[in-house]
Amino acid sequence: MSYMTQMEAARKGIFTKEMEIVLKEESISKKDLMEKMAQGKIVIPANKNHKSLSPKGIGEGLKTKINVNLGVSEDCCDQELELEKVMNSIKLGADAIMDLSTFGDTRGFRRKLADMSPAALGTVPMYDAVAKYGKDIASMTVEDLFKVVEEHCEDGMDFLTIHAGLNLTCVERLQKNNRLTKIVSRGGSILYEWMIKNNKENPFYEHYDRLLDICRKYDVTLSLGDGLRPGSLKDATDAPQIQELIILGELTKAAWEKDVQVMIEGPGHVPLNEIATNMQLEKKLCHGAPFYVLGPIVTDIAPGYDHITSAIGGAIAASNGADFLCYVTPAEHLRLPTAEDVKEGIIASKIAAHVGDIAKGIKGAIDWDHAMSEARGTLNWQKMFDLCIDREKAIEYRRSVIESSKGEACTMCGDLCPIKRCNEIA
Amino acid sequence: MSYMTQMEAARKGIFTKEMEIVLKEESISKKDLMEKMAQGKIVIPANKNHKSLSPKGIGEGLKTKINVNLGVSEDCCDQELELEKVMNSIKLGADAIMDLSTFGDTRGFRRKLADMSPAALGTVPMYDAVAKYGKDIASMTVEDLFKVVEEHCEDGMDFLTIHAGLNLTCVERLQKNNRLTKIVSRGGSILYEWMIKNNKENPFYEHYDRLLDICRKYDVTLSLGDGLRPGSLKDATDAPQIQELIILGELTKAAWEKDVQVMIEGPGHVPLNEIATNMQLEKKLCHGAPFYVLGPIVTDIAPGYDHITSAIGGAIAASNGADFLCYVTPAEHLRLPTAEDVKEGIIASKIAAHVGDIAKGIKGAIDWDHAMSEARGTLNWQKMFDLCIDREKAIEYRRSVIESSKGEACTMCGDLCPIKRCNEIA
Repeated sequence: MSYMTQMEAARKGIFTKEMEIVLKEESISKKDLMEKMAQGKIVIPANKNHKSLSPKGIGEGLKTKINVNLGVSEDCCDQELELEKVMNSIKLGADAIMDLSTFGDTRGFRRKLADMSPAALGTVPMYDAVAKYGKDIASMTVEDLFKVVEEHCEDGMDFLTIHAGLNLTCVERLQKNNRLTKIVSRGGSILYEWMIKNNKENPFYEHYDRLLDICRKYDVTLSLGDGLRPGSLKDATDAPQIQELIILGELTKAAWEKDVQVMIEGPGHVPLNEIATNMQLEKKLCHGAPFYVLGPIVTDIAPGYDHITSAIGGAIAASNGADFLCYVTPAEHLRLPTAEDVKEGIIASKIAAHVGDIAKGIKGAIDWDHAMSEARGTLNWQKMFDLCIDREKAIEYRRSVIESSKGEACTMCGDLCPIKRCNEIA
Repeated sequence: MSYMTQMEAARKGIFTKEMEIVLKEESISKKDLMEKMAQGKIVIPANKNHKSLSPKGIGEGLKTKINVNLGVSEDCCDQELELEKVMNSIKLGADAIMDLSTFGDTRGFRRKLADMSPAALGTVPMYDAVAKYGKDIASMTVEDLFKVVEEHCEDGMDFLTIHAGLNLTCVERLQKNNRLTKIVSRGGSILYEWMIKNNKENPFYEHYDRLLDICRKYDVTLSLGDGLRPGSLKDATDAPQIQELIILGELTKAAWEKDVQVMIEGPGHVPLNEIATNMQLEKKLCHGAPFYVLGPIVTDIAPGYDHITSAIGGAIAASNGADFLCYVTPAEHLRLPTAEDVKEGIIASKIAAHVGDIAKGIKGAIDWDHAMSEARGTLNWQKMFDLCIDREKAIEYRRSVIESSKGEACTMCGDLCPIKRCNEIA
């Protein structure tokens, strides 16, 4: 028996080598994995041309995964530097890398990534369309756009962000509902500009079947973009956002009819008390498709600290069912991230994912915490360091004062360390 | 008419100057404020001897407040350096400062604080007992302990952490229920040691009326400590913790009978999905007394990043009713915090408090976000900076690449800035 996509394999009862690898990293049964893949609730983004991939599963019952955005742009166009960031991100535990390049030899860069990245690779072809055809967006033809999509598939990208749901119905909602921040999705705004200036329907919506055929051919996972994600707490959970989510739900079903794997992209800026609602809405309207969220960030007022605002939102989102977190760095809203920003963003995102996994009851997730606290309870510093999410930072912090931390305790409590004293009494 | 405490004043219908100041900073009515103070749901920690105080209210319907822990210890004994940290913390927006000094001339330091701090001041007298009488804890007499308490009250401390609830009943629970991390409260462990070694009841439990009389005299707010707060996710919401909370509820009622203001201290290490339960339990068992939480931190595995793990927990706690957040710095579990650690901790805690305020619907809280997003929507950088929680960091981030951020946009999207392009189309 043969299959075109992982979803088709699952539906035909074929156990692929990608499923086998995923199964080893998760605490789900083979039967569950295949059932959920067949239903679209789990995806394994794995382009047939991405030979260096070590596949991961994303979706219900699996560990929450994290994505890191990188790429070459006009303002930061050193490919080598960016590749170094990619490799460091993978070392730090990124499950996926989105290459958001918008400048220079994007295809060369993409192919280098596909040659060396065990992490799943994603792109937003509309960005590359700008790199390829220039900033006069309206002049791009439908053929131009599909050419770029096909190239990305050929080049081994595992998932593509396509804002196919931002159709004329959504544009109408956008016009009828005032927003504080109209469109903050870059890919979404490019398509919007194309639609408005050409007075035409979204080409990826209009020619959606063509898009599905390309994705099916390479087994590229469609990451249906949220072009109208809120860019401020004010705009969260508003009519344009939910309208687009409704359309994405329809597109999800259509993709599944062709065995094309789908993820749904989500907000964005969302008040803490609206996050659970957003997660539930996605799972309902998009029929259980994995939810890939950007943040969400829970306040607008903390540029410089949006790794923290998104860790808060991401943890709550994950605990309410989000499957895949896009990292946010301290540089968000201010500048392209430096290597240090990238690291801060990754760690914050990994914390959020893990915290969410504990809360949603992913089997084994909390064992890590128990091991750490056992080490802490016996003041076994070596073991504590080994279990730290960032071993080097922890060691550096303790070393900075090691002379004054007499023996077992740390300088927080010194001789009055409650753990030390209690252990002595008991 | 006269009154001894703010609570008594509220009960007698006396509108104090402290209430007047609090009212100006909050969006609650005078009637509501006084009613809730009379019920114990709001406190205004304001020792009669703290002349430099600018009083703040803590409790139901008010903005969530944050506390910063500082102090002089054997490992870090430079009073001037510590005072500088205090002043910086107040500048950064700390609502309260807890002086956790355990070494040297603690009384001199405390008095300096009372002379210059507009922020409310808190202490843990048991720490000072160690500074005063040495580390042979069992040899301290009940008189010794009360002497320290009286001194702190005389010196103008607005609230005192007293672990009066950690009585023999709680010790029994502790012995019958295995924990991964037995006691992680320093003050709690000192009292525990005293109790075990002397085979006696907790002196603050046994002589609670005496404690209340002292507090009443100076109008010191009792911050009833959680000596058995969980120190690991494993121990969260367990029998010893909840047993102590039950006792604290009884002590709260007894304090209210003498018009003594009370806050309840809370965890600690708590999985995300148990935070709401913890908040509800406190409000029920302690009859609506304000809840003052340390974190909570939502995973044990991130030393070096516990400002983030506690921002996650603090935001969720606040959104579920916590009234007062104790900051946690990146140095938690590793060393005493540096000035930079203190800043990181304060900002993270302020973010959590604000995010919680938005979620719990504190009137006006979200206006800050709306103003920021309005500025963002028009790419008004000056206004954005002015609204940032950390103006300097945001400016520094943008300045670092200002040459390449051409005009309005930032380097994140450059010329493809969706806000810029959408504004041009519309």
